[in-house]
Amino acid sequence: MIIRDLVVTPIAFSDPPLLNADGVHEPLALRTIVQLVVDGGVIGLGEGGGGAAVAARVEQVRRAVVGLSVFDLNGIEAAVDAELGGDDGPLSRRERRVVYSMLDVAAHDAQGKLTGLPVAELLGGRVRDRVPYSAYLFYKWAGHPRSADVDDAEPDTWGAALDAAGIVDQARALVDRYGFGSIKLKGGVFPPAEEIAAVRALREAFPGLPLRIDPNGAWTHETAVRVARELDGVLEYLEDPVLGIDGMAAVAREVSQPLATNMCVVSFEQLAEAFSKDAVQIVLSDHHYWGGLRHTRELAAICGHWGVGVSMHSNSHLGISLAAMTHVAAATPELTYACDTHYPWNGAEDVVRSGALEITGGAVTVPDAPGLGVVLDEAALERQHRVYVDSGRSVRDDAGYMRCFDPTYSSALPRY
Amino acid sequence: MIIRDLVVTPIAFSDPPLLNADGVHEPLALRTIVQLVVDGGVIGLGEGGGGAAVAARVEQVRRAVVGLSVFDLNGIEAAVDAELGGDDGPLSRRERRVVYSMLDVAAHDAQGKLTGLPVAELLGGRVRDRVPYSAYLFYKWAGHPRSADVDDAEPDTWGAALDAAGIVDQARALVDRYGFGSIKLKGGVFPPAEEIAAVRALREAFPGLPLRIDPNGAWTHETAVRVARELDGVLEYLEDPVLGIDGMAAVAREVSQPLATNMCVVSFEQLAEAFSKDAVQIVLSDHHYWGGLRHTRELAAICGHWGVGVSMHSNSHLGISLAAMTHVAAATPELTYACDTHYPWNGAEDVVRSGALEITGGAVTVPDAPGLGVVLDEAALERQHRVYVDSGRSVRDDAGYMRCFDPTYSSALPRY
Repeated sequence: MIIRDLVVTPIAFSDPPLLNADGVHEPLALRTIVQLVVDGGVIGLGEGGGGAAVAARVEQVRRAVVGLSVFDLNGIEAAVDAELGGDDGPLSRRERRVVYSMLDVAAHDAQGKLTGLPVAELLGGRVRDRVPYSAYLFYKWAGHPRSADVDDAEPDTWGAALDAAGIVDQARALVDRYGFGSIKLKGGVFPPAEEIAAVRALREAFPGLPLRIDPNGAWTHETAVRVARELDGVLEYLEDPVLGIDGMAAVAREVSQPLATNMCVVSFEQLAEAFSKDAVQIVLSDHHYWGGLRHTRELAAICGHWGVGVSMHSNSHLGISLAAMTHVAAATPELTYACDTHYPWNGAEDVVRSGALEITGGAVTVPDAPGLGVVLDEAALERQHRVYVDSGRSVRDDAGYMRCFDPTYSSALPRY
Repeated sequence: MIIRDLVVTPIAFSDPPLLNADGVHEPLALRTIVQLVVDGGVIGLGEGGGGAAVAARVEQVRRAVVGLSVFDLNGIEAAVDAELGGDDGPLSRRERRVVYSMLDVAAHDAQGKLTGLPVAELLGGRVRDRVPYSAYLFYKWAGHPRSADVDDAEPDTWGAALDAAGIVDQARALVDRYGFGSIKLKGGVFPPAEEIAAVRALREAFPGLPLRIDPNGAWTHETAVRVARELDGVLEYLEDPVLGIDGMAAVAREVSQPLATNMCVVSFEQLAEAFSKDAVQIVLSDHHYWGGLRHTRELAAICGHWGVGVSMHSNSHLGISLAAMTHVAAATPELTYACDTHYPWNGAEDVVRSGALEITGGAVTVPDAPGLGVVLDEAALERQHRVYVDSGRSVRDDAGYMRCFDPTYSSALPRY
């Protein structure tokens, strides 16, 4: 059960032009795939954020974790933290946790393969056999522009969604295909009146489905309060209407909806302040930066004890992350909201073999196979690695990509 | 890995006349031993508080947990909670957790035996190979009285400790025999001036050893503040000088020592209030009522995030609990104080075979064997069960036992 090697593979995969408060998704999303090679040929899989810096950090900790037991999560975490310089080093605690999180997932996968147990069982047992996900709607262009003119694009299979009607059409397509039972709209893109109209149109088109909107802190206090009041009774929760714990607390005092966040509370060190100020009523967990699966469970337990709700955040991701999200969600009693996922936006590209994870009826069935229950497709991994290398890309830059089409674009927030 | 049976055995074992704020330990301490019988002949061992009511509650949940996977801790916990009536039932959440805690330990032991892993590895890996314990000093009579005259006793091997000199002698005996590197005095027994004198005598006799005193809430606010000031710079921490979160918070505002507790914060539901009021600077964890090993780790993680220290509480216990305490302490980075243990007071009586757990150099080496690493001595279990049955005892009653010798005794607190 000793870790003999750590293989780090930066990859890229196709991503549609999804709009958000920062800009627009580039044609390629970046991820990092890690393989923890353990005695006896067992390999644990992990997936996390992408780009050259992240891959280099994971490479950097390789020597520190080789030789440790794959069951020694405390030891792996401490080794990663020390190797990256700890509190006196150049990286924030969150940045170090991002690196550890990938290894944590891979270690859990290996542990499961070694013991014959699904990861959900290693995390305390599944409280649900199917994990609900929400339809994650984005304003989007028809396709990636071929020139500086955003209308100069070959439409992708999803087509454009630039107003309420387009958003409802997109929701219809996602709900029809995956059976989603709740809906999240990524906002902060257009003037709030347009986004309110889109939410109202969704409410009319899907009267039974919980709705959320997430402008990623694009609004001023006044806008946030106004939008919240206009959508009173319509939203399940309002995610990150403004930036910062104090800003969220100020909005929370004036609105009736619960406020959710994956922006103003992103590490354990912020919980005490956020909770004491009643800044957020729901925390969106994300094992990719909360320190992996076990610490995500701890986060949920803390939220439960403090009377704060738990949902789950997503970024562009592939099947290893979907499996990890599904296992930890299955083992987390406090998680009572449908999780976010970008998975439907990937198209057919993935680095695991298809079939293990499918969104049907709005949920993913927790795999019963040992570990995460997904199988690496080595040819696909090599293919997506080549895509990464050939792209010359090294960092995600939604704002920079937007400026290719609108040189005056500023991603400064609040915008509205 | 399915639980096929749950065997509950109430037991009793010899206990010296240790004095505390509630009264005096009776000649027999009561415990409950549980065996989770799993497929393939694997048996997981657990130990918890004793007496007829506790044993009956564990018996009551037997049918609810038989048939569950021994890895499904969430499922076992939910089944226990539901079977005992949940929030609408007759038992408090803490009382329900006491029952689950025993099963949690037994499940971890079985999991370890099934996977070949020590429990510390199941909990995330040991951050220390040896777990330090403190010398737990008690004022005590020479032996259990043979009549209503407390001086009418055959001295036990420890003899009397009724003043500063007796306490120092007791400390010397414990330190010489076990190598303890820190010392805790159970106080709240004699007028504070005498206990202050005992602490000062310990400081003089053991200049390098951290000292704690725990009067179990026997003091008034004024007494607590006065004692704390008189012992300024002498104590590692002051445990439960007064009762209640508000009382502790008021003391904390006036003294320099950190305050510790295992009385005013005994469940997760109390953490938010206690932390927001800065009532305690150290929480004494205890897996017997915090919901077992995994939740004890969660408690420690929470304390770490809120900047609150973590130590460990003990009650009269045998080797299964010592093993469980040692494994969870080994896997808990936040635990930086020597743990309490009553183990030296047991004499030779135990229900596990000797050898696996020894306190040497003030610490217990974490067992490397699968599970808890202790082996049930079935003859000893039967013997101690007979002691329990023959005693006719069904509940711990330190105050009632004290009244056998002093009919006017009142255990009402605060006393001084």
